[in-house]
Amino acid sequence: MWQLYQFPLCPFSRKVRLLLAEKGVGYEPVRESPWLRRDEFLDMNPAGQTPVMIDTERGGMPLIDSAAICEYFEETVEKASMINGTAANRAEIRRLVAWFDTQFFREITAPLLEERMVKRLVHRMTPDAGMLREAMKAAVGHLDYIDYLLDHRTWLAGATMSLADLAAAAQISVADYLGGIDWKSHEQAKRWYVGMKSRPSFRPLLAERMEVISPPADYEKLDL
Amino acid sequence: MWQLYQFPLCPFSRKVRLLLAEKGVGYEPVRESPWLRRDEFLDMNPAGQTPVMIDTERGGMPLIDSAAICEYFEETVEKASMINGTAANRAEIRRLVAWFDTQFFREITAPLLEERMVKRLVHRMTPDAGMLREAMKAAVGHLDYIDYLLDHRTWLAGATMSLADLAAAAQISVADYLGGIDWKSHEQAKRWYVGMKSRPSFRPLLAERMEVISPPADYEKLDL
Ligand SMILES: N[C@@H](CCC(=O)N[C@@H](CS)C(=O)NCC(=O)O)C(=O)O
Ligand SMILES: N[C@@H](CCC(=O)N[C@@H](CS)C(=O)NCC(=O)O)C(=O)O
Repeated sequence: MWQLYQFPLCPFSRKVRLLLAEKGVGYEPVRESPWLRRDEFLDMNPAGQTPVMIDTERGGMPLIDSAAICEYFEETVEKASMINGTAANRAEIRRLVAWFDTQFFREITAPLLEERMVKRLVHRMTPDAGMLREAMKAAVGHLDYIDYLLDHRTWLAGATMSLADLAAAAQISVADYLGGIDWKSHEQAKRWYVGMKSRPSFRPLLAERMEVISPPADYEKLDL
Repeated sequence: MWQLYQFPLCPFSRKVRLLLAEKGVGYEPVRESPWLRRDEFLDMNPAGQTPVMIDTERGGMPLIDSAAICEYFEETVEKASMINGTAANRAEIRRLVAWFDTQFFREITAPLLEERMVKRLVHRMTPDAGMLREAMKAAVGHLDYIDYLLDHRTWLAGATMSLADLAAAAQISVADYLGGIDWKSHEQAKRWYVGMKSRPSFRPLLAERMEVISPPADYEKLDL
């Protein structure tokens, strides 16, 4: 049985969970709060980050880093290929996954997690309004870019759904939970996201809650 | 013909260049300074980062993000496979590539580039001694980790040379150019790095210079 070390608002764990659900791979989620820097967790992953996966039956080394984890399941489970097409298509998928995992995360998800989650849970502080404003402004730019991609394509990286869609939806869903997303004048991006939200792989994630922090009223809704 | 947009001290471009040289793929380097945020470059890569590759004959989309670029050439050029072995081996290679590309880069290469290159070229300022000290201290920890890996393995990710070795050597070589590496009491890591430096793929990189900034005397030497 696979175990997945994660917490409900980790966008990289969400990307992995969406992939596993699309592929029909079962796993047991194990709650890990990386900000606590637990010794046993650091022994497993010196980077101290979620997600980490371990195969409790077969033993062996843990799988670490969400990109490496996704490539592993792409290579070992044929069903629902999410890095598909020609080598050029695959490069475009990986470019966009990196875009959402690094640029979107750095400008939007990471500051929202810091201001609205870590400050609250760890430091018992209130969020910095300026930081929240910056993140929400950056989100508008990213939704513009998604609109632009969808002007030319059915899915973010091309004609079929791919890991790029899962990576984007994972980041957006966390940002949305933390109140950072305003869909106003982003019709295309909104339609695409409602499509993602209505997938069976997505429903269980949307039903989860992080202690103390509540999402906005329409977080789970399909009619935004 | 492939063109590679890069500058001499970009560690991600160095990783790609090492891979291309090991595989025998020819390319023309095109000088790009991402900190200038040139409009034409941003049109090509909205992330504004080097490396970017384009195929000038066949046209098509640019290849963007060093991880996506490396996967592309792994998939299309059989020679000198650098993401090799079982799916588990491949996951360990990708974990370590991500480790050097993100943790090593963030703690060591990025601050050294900022303090010793960007401040000098762009802002005409002197480096912050405290930041340099922090980066050099972090480098000691990373060399310890490389020693630890080499206690158990011939190469960083296992029994054969892999992209993990190229990624690590790329970051280290830039940090070394910028005076951030002290090999004292890191015999294993040093032996491994001298082996990397002596490869034909590495020699041309070591011969290049960045304007205004000179490397330490033993930067190119094989007898450290
Ligand atoms: N590149 C990693 C990033 C993972 C990551 O940043 N995880 C966050 C939680 S969302 C974390 O563990 N942060 C704690 C830390 O960096 O110390 C991946 O894709 O798995
Ligand atoms: N994830 C990217 C990172 C590339 C990167 O950070 N490149 C640096 C130069 S070493 C850059 O272009 N920085 C400018 C910026 O981030 O604005 C990759 O692996 O290609």
